[in-house]
Amino acid sequence: MTPPLIGVLGGMGPLATVDFLHKLIVALPASRDQEHVPTIVWNVPQIPDRQLALAGTGETPLPAMLAGIARLNAAGATRIVIPCNTAHLWFDALTADSSVPLIHIADAALAALARATSPAGPIGLIATRGALRAEIYQARFAAQGIPFLTNTDAELDELFTPGCYAIKNYELERGGKLLEHAGRLLLERGASRLVLACTEVPIGLTHISSELLPISIDSTLALAEVCVAYWQQCSHRSRE
Amino acid sequence: MTPPLIGVLGGMGPLATVDFLHKLIVALPASRDQEHVPTIVWNVPQIPDRQLALAGTGETPLPAMLAGIARLNAAGATRIVIPCNTAHLWFDALTADSSVPLIHIADAALAALARATSPAGPIGLIATRGALRAEIYQARFAAQGIPFLTNTDAELDELFTPGCYAIKNYELERGGKLLEHAGRLLLERGASRLVLACTEVPIGLTHISSELLPISIDSTLALAEVCVAYWQQCSHRSRE
Repeated sequence: MTPPLIGVLGGMGPLATVDFLHKLIVALPASRDQEHVPTIVWNVPQIPDRQLALAGTGETPLPAMLAGIARLNAAGATRIVIPCNTAHLWFDALTADSSVPLIHIADAALAALARATSPAGPIGLIATRGALRAEIYQARFAAQGIPFLTNTDAELDELFTPGCYAIKNYELERGGKLLEHAGRLLLERGASRLVLACTEVPIGLTHISSELLPISIDSTLALAEVCVAYWQQCSHRSRE
Repeated sequence: MTPPLIGVLGGMGPLATVDFLHKLIVALPASRDQEHVPTIVWNVPQIPDRQLALAGTGETPLPAMLAGIARLNAAGATRIVIPCNTAHLWFDALTADSSVPLIHIADAALAALARATSPAGPIGLIATRGALRAEIYQARFAAQGIPFLTNTDAELDELFTPGCYAIKNYELERGGKLLEHAGRLLLERGASRLVLACTEVPIGLTHISSELLPISIDSTLALAEVCVAYWQQCSHRSRE
């Protein structure tokens, strides 16, 4: 049997990849290095900007992402994950080109949401304009009858997008506050829980120790939890 | 020309690898994702424990490390680094088996030490028993006429080694305090500056916001700085 190995298509952005690898460790209480999830990480941030491509002002990231998928397959990955929600707009094309299955971050986040206690009221969905337009999350919410709210175009322009790029520029305090503001507006409009459907968001909210975190589903952590479950299942099978 | 790509032989331990990848980002002030250092990370923590192998109570990690070096070469790495000082006991064997050069973490730390202002007095060297016995750092200090101090066997048993394993177990507060205590004893004996020659140590000291950090050379950060310099040099050349 091929030993289990999580392939990580990273670098989108670099800090989100680091946050994902950190959460893989935190999500698995281990007493020895050797118990942790093995990964191979293609962490090449030269992949063209996803948000610019979707806005029509930048080149497509698909060829660079496909090159990464090919490297991860060649290196022996048995599952592939992408700690970037917006990159999942190209999920079907990436899956079609991969010998091994990709795990979808929105499926991971929905599974985490299903495990969480559900206060009454709609979900506040925080995501990039590209991810919102592609309805990556909304299609899943609709299929499960989950009501949701999203930020307005003006809120994306003034709060979310600059907050997201601030995190990429390592301005964590400024980015965290902008992203928290975007989340608070959803709560004021009636959201009872947030889904952080952009992997820059939990980095910012954690940096400012935001009060929104306890009512948030962190898509990065959710993806790490699915990887830990896969690894533990494989380890369990190999001991039988 | 092959595009530059840093191969990271990681997983020793997993948290030290994450800390290294984080420091690669911090060490390069960038305004866009695309400016950051591209890496391929073989992050497979199933490599047998280095300290146990050197103590004669565990199997050798060499075959697993060689397998990682082979994967990094196959994936297109143009330089390889290992964010674990103790693993450098096998540096010559790993280099002999690699088509691309490995960067030695002790050379990176000595370069960082040379750049730092030099207070009078010897260096306090904090490292695993295995790294100390192999004199990875002491040989370099001796060659440059740099006086140094190390922890006693009793201090390694009571402070350093349990501190190091506490970090691996994600007991960051406890680990940080034990490692800080080991460092303070070197200062009391006359050390004027510390070299953190184990990649678990800066994680612990940072977690407790230790006062020792400003007088410490962090081998993880030093290795990241060498990688950033290599990447910037390659980028500069490709623009000429």
